[in-house]
Amino acid sequence: MIPTVEQVAAMIDHSLLRPELTTAEVRQGCAVAAERHTASVCVRPGDVELAAALLAGSGVLVGTVVGFPHGSTTTALKVAETRALVAAGADEIDMVLAIGRLRGGETEAVHDDIAAVVAAAQGRCVKVILENAYLSDEQKVTGCRLAERAGAGFVKTSTGFAPGGATLADIRLMRATVSGAVQVKAAGGVRTLDTLLELAAAGATRFGATATAAILDDLAARRRGEPAATPSPVPADAY
Amino acid sequence: MIPTVEQVAAMIDHSLLRPELTTAEVRQGCAVAAERHTASVCVRPGDVELAAALLAGSGVLVGTVVGFPHGSTTTALKVAETRALVAAGADEIDMVLAIGRLRGGETEAVHDDIAAVVAAAQGRCVKVILENAYLSDEQKVTGCRLAERAGAGFVKTSTGFAPGGATLADIRLMRATVSGAVQVKAAGGVRTLDTLLELAAAGATRFGATATAAILDDLAARRRGEPAATPSPVPADAY
Repeated sequence: MIPTVEQVAAMIDHSLLRPELTTAEVRQGCAVAAERHTASVCVRPGDVELAAALLAGSGVLVGTVVGFPHGSTTTALKVAETRALVAAGADEIDMVLAIGRLRGGETEAVHDDIAAVVAAAQGRCVKVILENAYLSDEQKVTGCRLAERAGAGFVKTSTGFAPGGATLADIRLMRATVSGAVQVKAAGGVRTLDTLLELAAAGATRFGATATAAILDDLAARRRGEPAATPSPVPADAY
Repeated sequence: MIPTVEQVAAMIDHSLLRPELTTAEVRQGCAVAAERHTASVCVRPGDVELAAALLAGSGVLVGTVVGFPHGSTTTALKVAETRALVAAGADEIDMVLAIGRLRGGETEAVHDDIAAVVAAAQGRCVKVILENAYLSDEQKVTGCRLAERAGAGFVKTSTGFAPGGATLADIRLMRATVSGAVQVKAAGGVRTLDTLLELAAAGATRFGATATAAILDDLAARRRGEPAATPSPVPADAY
């Protein structure tokens, strides 16, 4: 049974994170999110105020990113970012954990970094990006456990800016590692409806996507019994 | 006349910016910089305190990055980062300008963002990264002029994390655009001595590099009249 368009839209964080996007493009992206009733937009820190103003009353949450995309700033600065972005109107925070410290076995530093952001988010959902492209499976498992212990709402595969995004194997591994209290978000390479549905079947409940309109149009056509849409031209680096 | 090893070392910012580097790798990188007498190390914000401790008295400056690598955070957060990193021991700040705003023609916002970081740096050298991969030549020229007007010490081609790094044409364009009061830093793809010397001839006076040891060893061999070293194995994504 394929899900409804509304169900899939409610699992998409419409991603507007590319560094080269102009303010006009961010406005257009927020309009797409409002029209399609996505779960959220995920905007760059400098666009949170604008997105919050554009999406007020729409039911679309405003998500943003902290320590993005490298995760390598100080905990104090991640906390300052989180506080400022919550004050600017952010409803959800996608933070990048301390990748190098996780790889080097500094697990308590990784935990404390996440926990400090969770505290600064004052109850708002924090999604912890592991950036799996840089991690062994053992490090992915450790990262998931640290994120859950630190109070994350989600563990998330990727930023979309590393050499590698969401994979089925990683979604299964992450889903099997965290408890039912933590959800799994797939990001990086979620460019088609079929990819999204496969990742959902593996346990992902939220998706970072830029090809939101094409994915939802394809789903609508499929539900009407039409042949699959010709794949829309999506930039090779979309995520 | 080829320069001396000391002259070239004094033009290299030894780059330790990759998100996956462990603390042990950052320590090793700082040791390389101290041994080779580079101008500086360029470390991630979370490593500034460590690098400042390791390099105290070495003559090697501690550089770090702000708004890196996307340039898309708020000006207030770039200022907070700059202040915190100067307090932690940073001698130089490589900031990414507001790429999307430059592309969208919001030139005063781009200027004010840079000027605020320059003020927060309290006299320390600020290098402004344009991230040329996303810009037209006209936008590169505008970015250089805004950076100079805002008090930058350098304009810099690239972060090393975009699809494209330093090119000869860009170094020439940037050198021709800024006055003699502003220097030009080449980063992204500076993997060999020959590339560095070509970019220097085009007007660059500082270089971001990870292959520092191989570049300087190659230069030492060439000055001794030995045949060019076999190119060292450098990761394809080094910069």
